[in-house]
Amino acid sequence: MAQKVLIVYAHQSAGSFNAAAKDAAVEVLTAQGCQVEVSDLYAMKFKPSATADDITGQVKDAEHFCYGEETMLAWKEGRLSADITEEQRKLSDADVVIFQFPMYWFTVPAIMKGWIDRVLTKGFAYTSEERYSQGILKEKKAMLSFTTGSLESMFSVNGINGDINVTLWPLQNGILHYCGFKVLAPQIFWAPRVSSEVRCSMLEAWRTRLQGLLGEMPLSFTPSDSFDSERGFQLKKSIEEKQKSEHHGLTVGTHLGMSIPPNSQIKAGV
Amino acid sequence: MAQKVLIVYAHQSAGSFNAAAKDAAVEVLTAQGCQVEVSDLYAMKFKPSATADDITGQVKDAEHFCYGEETMLAWKEGRLSADITEEQRKLSDADVVIFQFPMYWFTVPAIMKGWIDRVLTKGFAYTSEERYSQGILKEKKAMLSFTTGSLESMFSVNGINGDINVTLWPLQNGILHYCGFKVLAPQIFWAPRVSSEVRCSMLEAWRTRLQGLLGEMPLSFTPSDSFDSERGFQLKKSIEEKQKSEHHGLTVGTHLGMSIPPNSQIKAGV
Ligand SMILES: Cc1cc2nc3c(=O)[nH]c(=O)nc-3n(C[C@H](O)[C@H](O)[C@H](O)COP(=O)(O)OP(=O)(O)OC[C@H]3O[C@@H](n4cnc5c(N)ncnc54)[C@H](O)[C@@H]3O)c2cc1C
Ligand SMILES: Cc1cc2nc3c(=O)[nH]c(=O)nc-3n(C[C@H](O)[C@H](O)[C@H](O)COP(=O)(O)OP(=O)(O)OC[C@H]3O[C@@H](n4cnc5c(N)ncnc54)[C@H](O)[C@@H]3O)c2cc1C
Repeated sequence: MAQKVLIVYAHQSAGSFNAAAKDAAVEVLTAQGCQVEVSDLYAMKFKPSATADDITGQVKDAEHFCYGEETMLAWKEGRLSADITEEQRKLSDADVVIFQFPMYWFTVPAIMKGWIDRVLTKGFAYTSEERYSQGILKEKKAMLSFTTGSLESMFSVNGINGDINVTLWPLQNGILHYCGFKVLAPQIFWAPRVSSEVRCSMLEAWRTRLQGLLGEMPLSFTPSDSFDSERGFQLKKSIEEKQKSEHHGLTVGTHLGMSIPPNSQIKAGV
Repeated sequence: MAQKVLIVYAHQSAGSFNAAAKDAAVEVLTAQGCQVEVSDLYAMKFKPSATADDITGQVKDAEHFCYGEETMLAWKEGRLSADITEEQRKLSDADVVIFQFPMYWFTVPAIMKGWIDRVLTKGFAYTSEERYSQGILKEKKAMLSFTTGSLESMFSVNGINGDINVTLWPLQNGILHYCGFKVLAPQIFWAPRVSSEVRCSMLEAWRTRLQGLLGEMPLSFTPSDSFDSERGFQLKKSIEEKQKSEHHGLTVGTHLGMSIPPNSQIKAGV
């Protein structure tokens, strides 16, 4: 069966490096027999804001409008707006989703955040019971592919921006893994502005990776059943001991050097 | 001198808990003699997408439109769109900025991300030389104030969502501290849906905190001059040794249990 790929793409310009990265993916994946669909968010003038207009017909409680509950209900009853329904159709069809974007303020641009807020409706993408390892989209893969202005060294463990893995945690764990996606390692194009040689070799490396992308091992996250739902979804003691002895997972450099004043509501982790 | 406070507020409904938290801030701060201004993003129908429409008059390179460069130039020449200019005016006037929002997908809702992408223009909020400790907005304070659906335990060091400090890193370090803001500890309203007693006591605690907010110590971040600009902005060895011995900063629980396949471009931190 031909694999289906959805590229959610956010750049204003067809002459950009992001456009070149997206075009390379379309070309290489199509050549492998994949069916590739692109959501070109700026070209579509995709609406980013989560509003009552996302629901057609009556809302349940206009006075105390609650976006999450209203859209869950509208999804069940087939009353989400046409643009959301169309993106959900593309996502349902897809085996793999690639998010292609320039990093804006340590995360995705607002237009892509809008796609995430509006398309990944509760009920459609997850429920309180079906999330993380049990997420509704667990048969699908997803990955981030993005460009930066920063050099790689700035996002290293001891770099001024902190470890890139920390910056990506909310996106890769909090969005992709949360919905169940198997998360492929991110493709990062560090500072493509530097020189045209570097740009060409980055695109070459991406084309090479794309050849084997569908066979890649995903990142692995601690399975949901390692957390105790009776204890507020905290890691089970037995698993904690095991992971400690294995030096499991992300370690954060000493310099994530935020210290928190003593009387604050939050505490630094131990 | 009366302190000026800007509240950037993102909720669709005046009957929401977020609205109540915003109203409490307006009331308590005004009673203290502050001048409080509110940007009510949904009510303003604030435009989130970063597009060429943000520039009035000619763009420099329409064919290869580069948002960052074009808006920096437009800012210098007073050619940013009226809505951005007005938000920048409010921000310039403010001593303290409070971002009030419901957490959407481990971060701010798209409409607020759009405010960040469009208002914090290079040149106005930071430059390559003036960022982090030297950020242009370094005389101002800022803070996040938000509600969640998750319980606090889920965002604890060993909770299923990972340490809240990690999730907030891109926002607090990558946006607020990057522009120079002194970052006040976040105000987190955990799961206000639970019970009305809890909601009332959370609002009471917020009102109490607001009384002393302007005198609070900010979070502290590793100063910019601890990083070596000649070595790609990596932490200086001398500082690293010192911080190690002090158990400085964020430590991330063992379970940020992402492990990365061996052949990936990125590596887990050590
Ligand atoms: C609001 C905002 C916030 C930002 N926040 C961050 C942040 O938090 N962290 C960070 O690191 N950066 C940040 N940046 C910088 C941003 O991430 C970079 O500007 C962006 O990633 C560059 O990608 P691009 O596709 O726009 O590059 P472009 O400028 O389009 O591309 C770079 C070069 O590649 C060339 N190119 C185009 N096509 C090809 C091709 N086929 N082959 C070879 N070369 C080609 C272009 O001509 C250009 O010279 C921010 C920028 C903005 C505007
Ligand atoms: C797209 C999307 C993504 C989300 N992602 C996340 C996520 O990543 N992590 C997460 O934890 N959660 C997430 N959530 C959940 C979301 O954060 C919560 O639903 C939200 O924070 C609740 O805040 P609210 O102001 O909307 O609550 P409301 O529902 O408005 O308020 C809660 C209760 O407070 C009551 N109230 C209103 N005014 C007052 C008052 N004056 N005094 C006392 N009570 C009052 C209301 O009547 C209501 O019963 C997401 C939701 C959506 C829609």
